Amino acid sequence: MILELAKDIDPKQLGALADKLEWMGFNYSIHKTDERTDIAIISGSDSKVDINQFKNLPYVENVSSFKQSFKLAGKELREKSKTFQIEDVTFGQGHFSVMAGPCSIEGEEQIFNIAEAVSSAGAKILRGGAFKPRSSPYSFQGLGKEGLKLMQKAAAQYKLLTVSEIMDAEDLPLIEEYVDILQVGARNMQNFSLLKKLGKTSKPILLKRGLSATYQEFLMSAEYILSGGNERVILCERGIRTFEPYTRNTLDIAAIPILKSLSHLPVIADPSHGTGIRSLVAPMSKAAIAAGADGLMIEVHPEPDKALSDAAQTISLEDFSKIMGSILPVNKQLVSV
Amino acid sequence: MILELAKDIDPKQLGALADKLEWMGFNYSIHKTDERTDIAIISGSDSKVDINQFKNLPYVENVSSFKQSFKLAGKELREKSKTFQIEDVTFGQGHFSVMAGPCSIEGEEQIFNIAEAVSSAGAKILRGGAFKPRSSPYSFQGLGKEGLKLMQKAAAQYKLLTVSEIMDAEDLPLIEEYVDILQVGARNMQNFSLLKKLGKTSKPILLKRGLSATYQEFLMSAEYILSGGNERVILCERGIRTFEPYTRNTLDIAAIPILKSLSHLPVIADPSHGTGIRSLVAPMSKAAIAAGADGLMIEVHPEPDKALSDAAQTISLEDFSKIMGSILPVNKQLVSV
Amino acid sequence: MILELAKDIDPKQLGALADKLEWMGFNYSIHKTDERTDIAIISGSDSKVDINQFKNLPYVENVSSFKQSFKLAGKELREKSKTFQIEDVTFGQGHFSVMAGPCSIEGEEQIFNIAEAVSSAGAKILRGGAFKPRSSPYSFQGLGKEGLKLMQKAAAQYKLLTVSEIMDAEDLPLIEEYVDILQVGARNMQNFSLLKKLGKTSKPILLKRGLSATYQEFLMSAEYILSGGNERVILCERGIRTFEPYTRNTLDIAAIPILKSLSHLPVIADPSHGTGIRSLVAPMSKAAIAAGADGLMIEVHPEPDKALSDAAQTISLEDFSKIMGSILPVNKQLVSV
Amino acid sequence: MILELAKDIDPKQLGALADKLEWMGFNYSIHKTDERTDIAIISGSDSKVDINQFKNLPYVENVSSFKQSFKLAGKELREKSKTFQIEDVTFGQGHFSVMAGPCSIEGEEQIFNIAEAVSSAGAKILRGGAFKPRSSPYSFQGLGKEGLKLMQKAAAQYKLLTVSEIMDAEDLPLIEEYVDILQVGARNMQNFSLLKKLGKTSKPILLKRGLSATYQEFLMSAEYILSGGNERVILCERGIRTFEPYTRNTLDIAAIPILKSLSHLPVIADPSHGTGIRSLVAPMSKAAIAAGADGLMIEVHPEPDKALSDAAQTISLEDFSKIMGSILPVNKQLVSV
Repeated sequence: MILELAKDIDPKQLGALADKLEWMGFNYSIHKTDERTDIAIISGSDSKVDINQFKNLPYVENVSSFKQSFKLAGKELREKSKTFQIEDVTFGQGHFSVMAGPCSIEGEEQIFNIAEAVSSAGAKILRGGAFKPRSSPYSFQGLGKEGLKLMQKAAAQYKLLTVSEIMDAEDLPLIEEYVDILQVGARNMQNFSLLKKLGKTSKPILLKRGLSATYQEFLMSAEYILSGGNERVILCERGIRTFEPYTRNTLDIAAIPILKSLSHLPVIADPSHGTGIRSLVAPMSKAAIAAGADGLMIEVHPEPDKALSDAAQTISLEDFSKIMGSILPVNKQLVSV
Repeated sequence: MILELAKDIDPKQLGALADKLEWMGFNYSIHKTDERTDIAIISGSDSKVDINQFKNLPYVENVSSFKQSFKLAGKELREKSKTFQIEDVTFGQGHFSVMAGPCSIEGEEQIFNIAEAVSSAGAKILRGGAFKPRSSPYSFQGLGKEGLKLMQKAAAQYKLLTVSEIMDAEDLPLIEEYVDILQVGARNMQNFSLLKKLGKTSKPILLKRGLSATYQEFLMSAEYILSGGNERVILCERGIRTFEPYTRNTLDIAAIPILKSLSHLPVIADPSHGTGIRSLVAPMSKAAIAAGADGLMIEVHPEPDKALSDAAQTISLEDFSKIMGSILPVNKQLVSV
Repeated sequence: MILELAKDIDPKQLGALADKLEWMGFNYSIHKTDERTDIAIISGSDSKVDINQFKNLPYVENVSSFKQSFKLAGKELREKSKTFQIEDVTFGQGHFSVMAGPCSIEGEEQIFNIAEAVSSAGAKILRGGAFKPRSSPYSFQGLGKEGLKLMQKAAAQYKLLTVSEIMDAEDLPLIEEYVDILQVGARNMQNFSLLKKLGKTSKPILLKRGLSATYQEFLMSAEYILSGGNERVILCERGIRTFEPYTRNTLDIAAIPILKSLSHLPVIADPSHGTGIRSLVAPMSKAAIAAGADGLMIEVHPEPDKALSDAAQTISLEDFSKIMGSILPVNKQLVSV
Repeated sequence: MILELAKDIDPKQLGALADKLEWMGFNYSIHKTDERTDIAIISGSDSKVDINQFKNLPYVENVSSFKQSFKLAGKELREKSKTFQIEDVTFGQGHFSVMAGPCSIEGEEQIFNIAEAVSSAGAKILRGGAFKPRSSPYSFQGLGKEGLKLMQKAAAQYKLLTVSEIMDAEDLPLIEEYVDILQVGARNMQNFSLLKKLGKTSKPILLKRGLSATYQEFLMSAEYILSGGNERVILCERGIRTFEPYTRNTLDIAAIPILKSLSHLPVIADPSHGTGIRSLVAPMSKAAIAAGADGLMIEVHPEPDKALSDAAQTISLEDFSKIMGSILPVNKQLVSV
C-alpha cells in the first residue's frame, strides 16, 4: 500500500502519522523526494489489508496498492531512476562506473600492479576475490582476510573503492571493515538468510543475477535487501545458463533495459563471467553500454594465463586499458543519443 | 590419489602409515569395506602430488589417481553403491524410503494429522518446513523453532524420522537438536560456506539439486559435505528450469540412473517440486521408481488448497495413501526386474 | 465452436444440417462416438463467430466455444482418449507398442537381421531411416528409396509394420508406397507446409516433439495434421535441449502424462534420442511406461559401435531382447495399477 | 581438404587440375581471392581421404585438412570476412544494412505506406511476410502470391530490395520471381531438404537461427546452402528460447561477434523477434550494432496495435524513423572505434 501525503506535511505531523501506523500494527517506511513524501506499507500481503482504513488518515491524499511484488525495488514509489553515492562515486542513471580487478587476489605485487593499471585506465573501483565460491572443495579458495588487507592497501594507494564477495554472513564484520561494496555472487542470489543480514549493513551491495534467475526473482532478491533498510543495491547481469556449449554463459543484454524499466536501481554488466571468453569482453562491454548499462565489471590480471581462477575470461592490463579507451567515449555518445 | 593397502594390514600398522602421511603434510581419509582398506589423499590438486612418493610406503600395494573430480562422492574408492543407516531406516541401493509432509509446518493439529497419515500409509520420514526460502520477503517465512518443536513431537508419537531445511548455518545447533535429516534446498546447493559447515555435523544431509545445476556440479556440492567428514548424503532430483511454462520445473528422471552410475550415494526424487502440479505426483513417482530411485519426497496436506505455501503441487492425505498403495508394490517388482 | 447434436439425429437430418453450415460459409467436421455426435466448427477464430447463430439450428442441443486452441487434438470434442488401428496394431490408451530398428538402414543383411530380432523380441513395428536429417551436409544422408525397399521386404518377411522419416513433401508418393507410418522429425515439427500436406495423406503420422517445443506448440503442430483430415497422429516425446552436457537431450517424462491429459492422441517415448546414451535406454524405457506411455521407439543395431549414425545411443539386439523381456511385464502391472 | 595453389597458375592449368580432380572422383570448389587461389575438396569425410595423394599434384603448393566442420562457412579458405552485393547493396564487414517492414503484408495501402517510410528513414530493404509460419493452423496464414506482388510494386516505387520468407520448396519459382532475398525462418533452420534446394537458387538467402540452435548447428545449416553453390548467405540472430517469461526470446548478442569470428558470412540481428517487446527494439538495436552486427531486421507497421501478427513487438513508422536517426550515426562511430 502506498500512502501519498500532502505536500505541506511538516515533520511533527509526519511523526504523528507514523506513530498512528505503528499503533495500528503496520510496518512502514517513509520515502521522501524533492516532489513528494510517501509512506510505503510493506508488511503483509496487500490483499489482506483494507485500503479504506488509510483513506481517512490525516494528511493522506491518496492511497494505492502496489502492483508489483517488488515494492521497494520497483518504480511505484518513485517514477524516476534514483542515484546514490558510494564515497565519491555516483551510481545510477546518467553515471557510469567500471569495476575491474582479478578473479582472485593472489599476492601483494599482483594486486598493486592491477590497482595501478585499473586506476590509470580511468576506473574507480577495484574488484578482487578473497573468499571464492569454487565448485570444487579442492580448488583454491582464496586468501581470505589476508587478501582483503592487501586489496585495501592497494586501493588506498590508488584512490580506488573496493568490491569483494561475501559468501558467509559470519564474515560480515571482517568484510565490512575492509571492503566498500559487498558482492553477493550468482550462486547466493537466493541465499535469503544472507540477503536479510545484508539488509542491515550500512555498506552498499552488488547483487549478481543467479544462473537461471528470472527478472522477477532477481528483483525479489534485491527486495530482501531493500526491505531490511539498505537502499544501496546495484544489480549485475552476469549471464544465464543456456544450451550453448561455446560460451560459459549467455550474457542477457536485454536484461539491462528491462531491469532499468522495472526498477530504479542501477544495473551493470559483467562481460567476463557473462561469456567466459577473453575476446568477447570488448564487444560485449560496448553492447552493454549501448543497451543502457550503468557500469561494467571486468576481470583483469597482469598475466591472464597464469591467473589462479577464471583464466580463460580474464584480460590483460594492456587490453583493459585499450577497452577503457574505446568504451568511455562510446558511453558518452550513446548516453547523449 | 588412492592408496590401496595390503589386506592383512593391522590397526597398528595402519596407524603408523597414517602418522607418516600426516608428517608428510597430507590430508587423508581412511575407507574400509569388507573387502579392502584404502586411503584417499584428497587435499590439493592431484596433479601437483608425485605419485611415486607413495609407492614405496609400507603396506601400500597400489597407488592410483582419481579420474573424477568428485573423489569421495564417486565410485573410485568403492565400486558398489553403499548403504547407510539413519536410525532404523536404511538408505541406498536395494532400499526404498518415502519422505512426506507439508511444505510448511502450520500448527499442531496440522502436523499431527499429517504425521498420522504419513505413518499409516507406510512412510518412515516426516518432512516439514520451519525455515522457508520464499522468493518474496513478504511471504510467510515459516514458524521457525516453534515449528520444529511441533514436528518433533508429532514424529515421536508416530515413530517417524524428520527432515527439514536449513537455510542458515547460524541455525545449525537448533536444527540439529530437533531434526534427524538436514535438508539443503535447491537455492543453496552452491552455498559452499553452508556445505562446509554441514560436513562437520553428525546429522545426515538431504542435498537438493540446484535449478540449473549440472550433474557434475551437483556431485561437487555433495563432495563439499563428504570432504568435511560427513558421509551420509542423500541426493535429491527436484526438477530443473526449462522453457516449458506448463510445469513449475522439468523433473529430470534420467538424473536418477546417471547419478547412481556416477556416485555411490542414494538418489531420491521430489515429484512435487519437480512438476508443481498435483495430478503429476502419482505418475512421476512411478517413473522415478522405475528409473531406479532410492526414495521419494512428497508434499502432503490435509486441505491442499489451503496450504500456506506450494498449494498447487500438494496432494491430500487420501491421495497420498492411494499413491503409496500403488507405488510400494511397483517398487518391489521393478527392483527385482 | 462445438455443436452438440440430438442423440436421435438421423443421417438425412445430419446431412441437411451440414449443408446449412456449408451454405453459411463454415468449415466443419463431424465427430461421432458411441455416445454422441458433435460438429466442430474449426475455421476462423472462435471470437469472431457469434455463438447465437448456431443455437437455433435444428438438432443442435448445445453450443460451446473451444477453450483450447488445439481444438481437434484436445479433449473437448471427446472426453476419453481414443484408440485407432494401423493394420493389426492398436494405438492409444490401454495398448502398448514398441517400434525398433536402426537409426539408418545400411543394407539388406543389416535390416533383415534387425527385423528378425525386433520381431522375435515381441515388437510389432520396424523403424529405419532412409532419408536422414544430418546436421552436416557431408554426413551420410541415408540410402533413400533403396533403403525403403529393403526395409519393406524385411518387414514383410517378419510381419512387421514400418515407420520412416519424411523430410520433404516431394518424397511423399515414394514414402507412402513403402512405409506404414510416416515420421516427422524433431527438426521439422514446425515445418508447417509439410504438416499441411501430411494432413491429406491416408497414412498415420508419428510426430516428434521439437527440441525446444512447448506442449502447446507440439499439440498445435498435431492440430495442423488433424485439421487437414488425417486423424491418426502419434505424439513422440524425444527429449528437449537443456544446459546439461552429460546427455544429448533431457527426456521430459512428465510430457507423457501431461500430453495424455490434454489430448486424446497416443503418446510414445524415444529413450534413444531422449538421452543419447546406451545404458539409459532400459531405465528410461521403464520410466516412460510407468508414466503412462502408449509405446516406445528404440534404436537397435547388430553391432552398435559400427552404426553409421547415432552409435552412442544404439543398443545391441541382445540388449533389446532383454529390455523387452523386462518392460513388457512391467507395462502390464503398471497399466493395471 | 584445402589445396593452396601456386600464385602464377593460369586458367588453362587450373582447368587441367580441376579435370584431374574430377577424374579422381572428388567434388571440389574453386575459391579465388585477390591474393590466392584455393581448391576445396569438400565431399566425404576428410578423414577418409589421404592427404598425400594431393601433395604431388601440379601447382599444388600446400595441402591442409579442414579443422572446422563448416568448411565453406568458416574462415579456413579465406581469412578475412568477405562482402557480397545484392543489387546495389553491399553486405558484410564494414557495411551496414537495415531491413524493415511488416510481419505480414496486409494490403496495398499498408505496404506502400511502409515502403515509403522505410525508404525515407534510410533503409534499403523492405521485409514483408506473404507465407507465414503460424503456430496455429487457424491463424492468418498470409496473403501468398498476392502479397508478394504488392510488396514488389511498393519496393519498386521506393527503390528498395525485398526480403520474404520461403516455407516450402514448392513455392521457390514464385518467390524467386518476386523477391530479392529469400528468408529461411527459425523453425525451418534445420529443414535440410529446403536448404539443399536453396543452395541451387541464384537468390541470396537470409538464414535465421533456430530457437535452440547452437552456433555450430547454425553454421552447418549455412553450410548446406553454401555447399550447393549459393555463396550469398546472411546469418540472422533472432533470439533463443530460455526460461525467462518476460520476453518472447532472449536475444543472444554474443552470437554476433562469435559468428563473425567463426565465419566470413555477414551477421545481422532481429531485435523484434529477439525480444517480442516494442520498447526493446531501440536499445537492442544499439547493442547489436555495438557488438558488431552488419545489419538489422525490424518489424514496423503504420498502426502497430492493429497488425495482424506479432503486434506486441512491432514499432510505428515514426519510432522507426527515430531509431534510424539514432543508430546510423552510432554505427559509424562504433565501426571506427
